[in-house]
Amino acid sequence: MIGSPGFTVEPWGLTASGPDPSVLAQTESLFALSNGHIGWRGNLEEGEPRGMPGCYLNGFFEEYPLSHAEPGYGYPETGELLLNTVNGKLLRLLVDDEPLDVDEGTAQRHERRLDFRDGTLRRELEWTSPSGRTVRVRSARLVSLVERSLAAIEYEVEAVDACRVVVQSELLANEPLPFEHPDPTVAARLARPLVPVAHAADGTRAELVHRTAASGLMMAAGMDHHISAPAGAVVEAEGLPDLARTTIAVQLAAGERLRIVKFVAYCWSPSRGEAALRDEVDGVLSVARRSGWETLLERQRAFLDGFWRTADVEVEGDAELQQAVRFALFHVLQAGVRAEGHAIPGKGFTGPGYDGHAFWETETFVLPVLLATCPEAARDALRWRHSTLDEARRQACLLRQRGAAFPWRTVSGRESSGYWPASTAAFHINGDIADAVLRYVRATGDREFEERFGVELLVETARLWMALGYTGEDGGFHIDGVTGPDEYSAVVDDNLYTNLVAWQNLRGAAEAATKHPSRAEALGVGDAELAEWRRAADAMAVPYDAVREVHAQSRDFTRRERWDFEATSPDDYPLMEHFPYFELYRKQVVKQADLVLAMAQFPDAFSGEEKLRNLAYYEAITARDSSLSAATSAVLAAEVGDLRLASEYAAETALIDLDDIHDSVQDGLHLAALAGVWTAIVAGYAGMRHEPDGLRFAPRLPDGLTRLSFGLRLPGGALRVDVRPDTTTYAWNGDSPLVLRHFRDTAEVRPGEPVTLPTPPLRAPGIPIRQPPGRAPRTLISRNGD
Amino acid sequence: MIGSPGFTVEPWGLTASGPDPSVLAQTESLFALSNGHIGWRGNLEEGEPRGMPGCYLNGFFEEYPLSHAEPGYGYPETGELLLNTVNGKLLRLLVDDEPLDVDEGTAQRHERRLDFRDGTLRRELEWTSPSGRTVRVRSARLVSLVERSLAAIEYEVEAVDACRVVVQSELLANEPLPFEHPDPTVAARLARPLVPVAHAADGTRAELVHRTAASGLMMAAGMDHHISAPAGAVVEAEGLPDLARTTIAVQLAAGERLRIVKFVAYCWSPSRGEAALRDEVDGVLSVARRSGWETLLERQRAFLDGFWRTADVEVEGDAELQQAVRFALFHVLQAGVRAEGHAIPGKGFTGPGYDGHAFWETETFVLPVLLATCPEAARDALRWRHSTLDEARRQACLLRQRGAAFPWRTVSGRESSGYWPASTAAFHINGDIADAVLRYVRATGDREFEERFGVELLVETARLWMALGYTGEDGGFHIDGVTGPDEYSAVVDDNLYTNLVAWQNLRGAAEAATKHPSRAEALGVGDAELAEWRRAADAMAVPYDAVREVHAQSRDFTRRERWDFEATSPDDYPLMEHFPYFELYRKQVVKQADLVLAMAQFPDAFSGEEKLRNLAYYEAITARDSSLSAATSAVLAAEVGDLRLASEYAAETALIDLDDIHDSVQDGLHLAALAGVWTAIVAGYAGMRHEPDGLRFAPRLPDGLTRLSFGLRLPGGALRVDVRPDTTTYAWNGDSPLVLRHFRDTAEVRPGEPVTLPTPPLRAPGIPIRQPPGRAPRTLISRNGD
Repeated sequence: MIGSPGFTVEPWGLTASGPDPSVLAQTESLFALSNGHIGWRGNLEEGEPRGMPGCYLNGFFEEYPLSHAEPGYGYPETGELLLNTVNGKLLRLLVDDEPLDVDEGTAQRHERRLDFRDGTLRRELEWTSPSGRTVRVRSARLVSLVERSLAAIEYEVEAVDACRVVVQSELLANEPLPFEHPDPTVAARLARPLVPVAHAADGTRAELVHRTAASGLMMAAGMDHHISAPAGAVVEAEGLPDLARTTIAVQLAAGERLRIVKFVAYCWSPSRGEAALRDEVDGVLSVARRSGWETLLERQRAFLDGFWRTADVEVEGDAELQQAVRFALFHVLQAGVRAEGHAIPGKGFTGPGYDGHAFWETETFVLPVLLATCPEAARDALRWRHSTLDEARRQACLLRQRGAAFPWRTVSGRESSGYWPASTAAFHINGDIADAVLRYVRATGDREFEERFGVELLVETARLWMALGYTGEDGGFHIDGVTGPDEYSAVVDDNLYTNLVAWQNLRGAAEAATKHPSRAEALGVGDAELAEWRRAADAMAVPYDAVREVHAQSRDFTRRERWDFEATSPDDYPLMEHFPYFELYRKQVVKQADLVLAMAQFPDAFSGEEKLRNLAYYEAITARDSSLSAATSAVLAAEVGDLRLASEYAAETALIDLDDIHDSVQDGLHLAALAGVWTAIVAGYAGMRHEPDGLRFAPRLPDGLTRLSFGLRLPGGALRVDVRPDTTTYAWNGDSPLVLRHFRDTAEVRPGEPVTLPTPPLRAPGIPIRQPPGRAPRTLISRNGD
Repeated sequence: MIGSPGFTVEPWGLTASGPDPSVLAQTESLFALSNGHIGWRGNLEEGEPRGMPGCYLNGFFEEYPLSHAEPGYGYPETGELLLNTVNGKLLRLLVDDEPLDVDEGTAQRHERRLDFRDGTLRRELEWTSPSGRTVRVRSARLVSLVERSLAAIEYEVEAVDACRVVVQSELLANEPLPFEHPDPTVAARLARPLVPVAHAADGTRAELVHRTAASGLMMAAGMDHHISAPAGAVVEAEGLPDLARTTIAVQLAAGERLRIVKFVAYCWSPSRGEAALRDEVDGVLSVARRSGWETLLERQRAFLDGFWRTADVEVEGDAELQQAVRFALFHVLQAGVRAEGHAIPGKGFTGPGYDGHAFWETETFVLPVLLATCPEAARDALRWRHSTLDEARRQACLLRQRGAAFPWRTVSGRESSGYWPASTAAFHINGDIADAVLRYVRATGDREFEERFGVELLVETARLWMALGYTGEDGGFHIDGVTGPDEYSAVVDDNLYTNLVAWQNLRGAAEAATKHPSRAEALGVGDAELAEWRRAADAMAVPYDAVREVHAQSRDFTRRERWDFEATSPDDYPLMEHFPYFELYRKQVVKQADLVLAMAQFPDAFSGEEKLRNLAYYEAITARDSSLSAATSAVLAAEVGDLRLASEYAAETALIDLDDIHDSVQDGLHLAALAGVWTAIVAGYAGMRHEPDGLRFAPRLPDGLTRLSFGLRLPGGALRVDVRPDTTTYAWNGDSPLVLRHFRDTAEVRPGEPVTLPTPPLRAPGIPIRQPPGRAPRTLISRNGD
């Protein structure tokens, strides 16, 4: 793990023993707690040493002027950065006036454990100060999955040797960060982004109120404490504009303990004022204090029990994959469960990577997992998109198109990208959003959502495609000059993936508008427009190379010069860090699944033979310089019958963060890759596909696995699929029977009457599927230190 | 003229009477004096009012970090800005302590005149101060075309009413500019770019030495004076780090005069120190003082007499075109004549536009004119390119190519562009440089240049094409992912213009290497490489649309969606200011001649019928949002027989600066468009083409012109071509007969024996040539105020 043997393989947690200081920043990301509103990186309570501090509030950002080396029409003028806000995790400890610091003194024992079942990060430390006093520190923290504005820490110091201990529990604003924005003007602007508005401290309670200078947001952070201490403890409070501190000082005899429960509340608003925000924080703290730590813990556990009951994936035969998939599901849940009205960023709330921006990955990779396991979170994420529709309409207008053009990267809903060929031109994000809407409605049957939010999202994105595309002389509907998922090509014509999401978007909009006529009418959709959408969808161009008998990622893609992988040295990867864009764009080299993603998303648009030939062709030219690729390759490899390759890809996506394959975990987790672990298992091994008439499965276990079980939340109940080498059992707890397909068979599963079906023989693929030299999947590295 | 009736139409000068203050900045550009080393904008001597101060030294720049909103591999990290250096033009006048200011008091008469024959800017002003004292001021200034480091001003004040006059003659550094760089960090850095090193003032002489902080260049500016004054004149000198001042104070009786001649010298170096630069300045000033104003003036006139003797273009029947072509030739000469070892920027030294950068226009549009009229300047410009070869080789290596990749925009030779699709990807600049080398060698027979500089330039650019291109499955040599001259397309495959310059480059390199075997060997060129170049050239792809029977600007260009010109409002031009790049790139809309330029540059690669069809096709989709387009269209319109259109385009290019058609003359003149006036006449009306076996002409006069005459410098002599409605006379003063082609005939012209040949009947084009709605050429606007 991260080159460090400190992690153990266990089914329900992730434990780092004596963490290596050189991977501190990585563990802070892996141990991050979040609920989609608050994000706390796994920093040590004492603040230092730290790789990267991080306390995020979803949607709370500062803006700055984006500086372009050469200006151009329609370029975004404003950058957005999700801020590191008020650090409420701090509990500094002085032992006889020596600060606890694991880099000083001696840590006899130091263990941290993220628990997927009770949603806590626990820590145990036995530490001897440089002058020889030993204490035991135990802490547990949680970011509440039930109370979205609340986090809490239980912190206990036990004196092994008699000593005086002082705990400083803090709220700290404008904490210095170990990196700076490369543009000095921006760096200066963001050095102390929080402008103090008010501060107060009284006894165990304190509050800080801040606002941002440019984006005009205001936030309040508050803390309160339960203190259990031997007699003689002194509690003091002090408040400064950027620092509120409650200090607890007490003399401990050997064996005596000081226990503190710290409740931290965060609220922010673009419109409400100081008084309202302080009241809200006070309210949250009052309730939390009354509930107490144990109750918070119980509720957290109860919430997660409910989640795992349906969502758990059991893997037998690969303990590491078992751990990885639960780790992944836990983080996917954390990122979105209480986002409510805000985005789910590419790194969740686990680090500063991508400036805290949300991308298309949320809709395409993350939402399908939430949809199956926590559909309310998927719904909320789409409602957030809907709330940004006016901005997207303005953007479409600025770009001289029609309808809505959603941003490639954003916190607030406004486009914040700096390089248009790989952002503005990647219009597929609009089709991805439409895809997520259609999947949500199909999977949940949520008609109210469809009418209130879905129709409008579908209609406005459909209008964008009509503005972007045109009917060519060949009668086909073409969409030229756009960028697909593969970022080693840009501004291409008829990107097949883009055309398919547009096709689905146009059809979906027409169907939804027909289904909700009054809503459609309110949006100005008439029969002529519906007919146009249907005509364009029916005529959508699907580029195909008849000579090579493969689909073309974009028109004429397969006639480009092939990348010379033999002449590419291992040090040249990732290619975008060693070759200019123009060199990548003009050759046949793929950063990440694009046509292969199209086959995963639109399985019915390709025959089995086409899928195999396409996969073989594109695998051979895919550098896989993106964390988004492995899971999709796993799905297709499984579909064409190469289960060995599927399992290698499942392993790679499982370890992208746990083994820091992309050397960037310090900046936060790759949420889409984590979601991909589930996808590789469910859509890969189990072959799950959504079809118009329901779910289809084609479950097979790769060598080494002896059992696989996963659950899905469906309208009216939960389905559990239990895959064994020769059979699969489907169990359903809904009210009425569920009809599904198992390979080519149709099965009806009655509530409480599991159905077991045999696995047909595997037909191995007739063409070998190979990666470019040196680009085979990263195989599972044992994390047991051997 | 610039919406102002102040300019008169005259054959040998440009006169502004009572210049309108609102067009001051434009007149400063039009009246700029330069010799290719020093550039002085036409600011008033008293410094204010001014539109934009400007005193440039070729190659003297400051650098700054280029800030990219999103970084990418190989992006230029350093921007370059040609600096406004020490202002040596200042002669402030106090009349009884009231400063001369044409915006205050009353200017009874105020006339400025640029004289193309004696190379001076003269001014006459009669001015009455607010308190009622009247003076007459006469000045004349020149930037010496003979002494490259020298400029001079004659300044005379005559008292109409008795008064005390004080003249402050200055050298002023770090003069504030009326604009700021949009990036505040860069603006701060460039606010006072000159760091004082030394200053001295003594009597009539003074010097300032400065250096740049980042680019590490040092410059010295010095001044000295001749003063003729009535008795009692007091002369004082003072020196400060950024200001040297000689003050002359004298009481003038009515009718008495104060005459000052100010000599100004500028030297700079990247390596020499303060003492050496001061010595150089002192030396220049000593010689100038000894020569005196009249001698400088005579030499300037003699130099220009020599130039005009061969280079003059006489136009009868269009007084405005007559004036415009001489204005244009004068500025083209000024920009390059003494550049010696430095670049010729896109705006010469007439303003701050394009940051003082040189582009491909120099080689493609400006050098052909210099080659015909002042070939030494063309040679020097190419030697400058050669001097930057190491940097170009580094750039090719950075871009993961081979050979040399010259910068799209630069002062020093280093790439300084901020948007790669319209710069780095525009590799045609390398073929343009090769083209200029081949033209120079062919036109001059300068074998020494070819061996010392030409071969290496050709070989290294040929190597770049071999790295960029590949042999496709169709056997053709393809160059994908590059940007041609038209900036409304980018990163296209097989741009026809680019492929043709590459084709010529490869063949030219092979021929030059064969001709200079030892030089080729020293460059590592072997037989195999020569064979590769020839094979690639022979197989070069030339995209053609067989259905529409036109060449394609790039592969599949003609199958793109056509731009909807009918729906484009007049306010939407220039399109790049109102549409995003992606929208322009994916449609059939052309900013500037691209395929049409290919036909002008490679006339033998297209049949006459093809030229006509291509011109008709591309004219109909060309927005002409670039000043580079009109002249090329004029050439092709003339070739296909549409002389009316040719004359409209000739008029447009003639007036791009004189009528400020692009609303940007305040930032400097468009040197390539000025060169285009000559090209429209010589390659357009006279149909001059360089062919392997010599020059070919096809001269015809458009309606309205009664005579046209122009001269060319050729090896061994000068050719004058005198075109009348029905005949053309060729006169040659060389040593041996000159063979040329007149239409389809071959003629031998003996020295001193002019040959007159008839003009064959004109065949009008069979297809109408039309522009998009509202985009017809700007017709000649009368500048006589009616």
